[in-house]
Amino acid sequence: MSERIAVVGVGRMGGNMARRLAEVGERVVAVCDRVTSRAKQLAQELNCEAPRSLAKVTALADVILTVVTDDAAMDSIFPKNRGGLLTHAGGRLFINCATVSPECHARVEERATQVGAETLEACMASSVEHARRGALYLMCGGRRETFERALPLLKKLGREVRYIGETGEAARMKLIVNLVMNANTAALAEGMGLADALGMDLSLVREVLDKTGAASRVLETDGEDMEKREYQCYFSAAHATKDINLAVRMARRCRLELPIASAAKRQYIRLLKTGLGDLDKSAISELTFRERGFITRRRAERHAS
Amino acid sequence: MSERIAVVGVGRMGGNMARRLAEVGERVVAVCDRVTSRAKQLAQELNCEAPRSLAKVTALADVILTVVTDDAAMDSIFPKNRGGLLTHAGGRLFINCATVSPECHARVEERATQVGAETLEACMASSVEHARRGALYLMCGGRRETFERALPLLKKLGREVRYIGETGEAARMKLIVNLVMNANTAALAEGMGLADALGMDLSLVREVLDKTGAASRVLETDGEDMEKREYQCYFSAAHATKDINLAVRMARRCRLELPIASAAKRQYIRLLKTGLGDLDKSAISELTFRERGFITRRRAERHAS
Repeated sequence: MSERIAVVGVGRMGGNMARRLAEVGERVVAVCDRVTSRAKQLAQELNCEAPRSLAKVTALADVILTVVTDDAAMDSIFPKNRGGLLTHAGGRLFINCATVSPECHARVEERATQVGAETLEACMASSVEHARRGALYLMCGGRRETFERALPLLKKLGREVRYIGETGEAARMKLIVNLVMNANTAALAEGMGLADALGMDLSLVREVLDKTGAASRVLETDGEDMEKREYQCYFSAAHATKDINLAVRMARRCRLELPIASAAKRQYIRLLKTGLGDLDKSAISELTFRERGFITRRRAERHAS
Repeated sequence: MSERIAVVGVGRMGGNMARRLAEVGERVVAVCDRVTSRAKQLAQELNCEAPRSLAKVTALADVILTVVTDDAAMDSIFPKNRGGLLTHAGGRLFINCATVSPECHARVEERATQVGAETLEACMASSVEHARRGALYLMCGGRRETFERALPLLKKLGREVRYIGETGEAARMKLIVNLVMNANTAALAEGMGLADALGMDLSLVREVLDKTGAASRVLETDGEDMEKREYQCYFSAAHATKDINLAVRMARRCRLELPIASAAKRQYIRLLKTGLGDLDKSAISELTFRERGFITRRRAERHAS
């Protein structure tokens, strides 16, 4: 009999991961979310349960994927007092997919071990579409044996599943990835914004950038969106801000100065403050195009009211 | 009878462009350089002349490629008083390949037009190796007819020759390209430096970056060099500094703030000040790896002595 699976945190990523698993025949028995209506709706779609209590989720499933927002959310579902998902959790496998701090993963692992459960980090370096198609790039951290146990399931979610190292290592890698990605996005926005101010043809600019040393994945994913101001969310500006913040803090603890990442961090914070945090990170071009103040102002006003 | 070609400025790029043209059967009749020994040596290799006087270069050739360092060098070979390369230059075609300011291209075009010569910008977005193999990416600015005249020759130098717009437009495009490229390089160095400080396996880091939204051309060209501290020069830190300076100045004239580019500019200036300007731009990782102070210090001392 195959393992019973639950997903906790069924927002844009988690929800689509649950859909994908159900689609390929995995036994998705429960979904759970802070926003109960969201969980209920998905449970109906997938014909599974949507328990309100985390203890119930653990009671129903063998493997529990968690895809929550941040460290605080992780601490609330894996509480110190061994409640929440840790209630009678012996033998359970928790696969934690959110981008949280390496320390948070270590903390959760320790708490889970105390109740006889296993944990694995499976950080995702991909977007919603990849989640839906089972084409995530997954970076895993934890015990090798735990990784082996989780691998067959993870392969249904990811086109590539990479073992990175012990607990915390995958989160570190993810923060490095996002540091470079988010800084590249901010730099691209400056190049595009300057080209725009000079009256250049932005399609031509993108074509040329792509043929040169300026080519990058974010040029492919965000370049046209910046030109056309289409900021449908694949990876939100709020997430970018959170991640670059974590990376800069991690660097500070290593006594490293990262001037580019710090400048990018300040830009993302500026973007958030104008109320654009729920847009895609490509919306950072709203800060670098001369004529684009108005969206920012309009949204800021709405945000303030 | 095919046109007679001269190359002025036969450093790393210009020298290899002259070699390439000779190799594919073009009539390279003269080479010229501020460093006369360099020109003489190349002239011997290519069996052509190495006149000391710029006027002589113009007398010998129909098409003159210039590949010099900066605006000042351009102003000295195309002087206001119509001497230098402009001496009896009626009918000549000057193809200017250096990365200089858009204003400089406009100035040179004006002076050349006054003496009955034509000019074309052909900005290069490639490295020395590409020059040698005729695989440059060339961005051209100037009159369309001039571009058409130069095209057959340029195709022997470039795998792709792109008309960008009127005089100055190619230089603007090149500065945008280099802004994004150099900022991406600086961001990559921070990601790699942080990974190193965290004790991560840098080959694994590069592998993962390449599979994710952090992938970029500079990861391919500079990532391994940063890891191995191999800074053989493809595109010098000094050039990167000059270019990002020009871009930031251009932005300031448009009243645009570019915080990422400005932070990158400060990093490249720091690198130059430590005496590492002649290394490849990837040497910027010397500033972001915690243990790498020593090369910097050693070189700085040598530079100071």
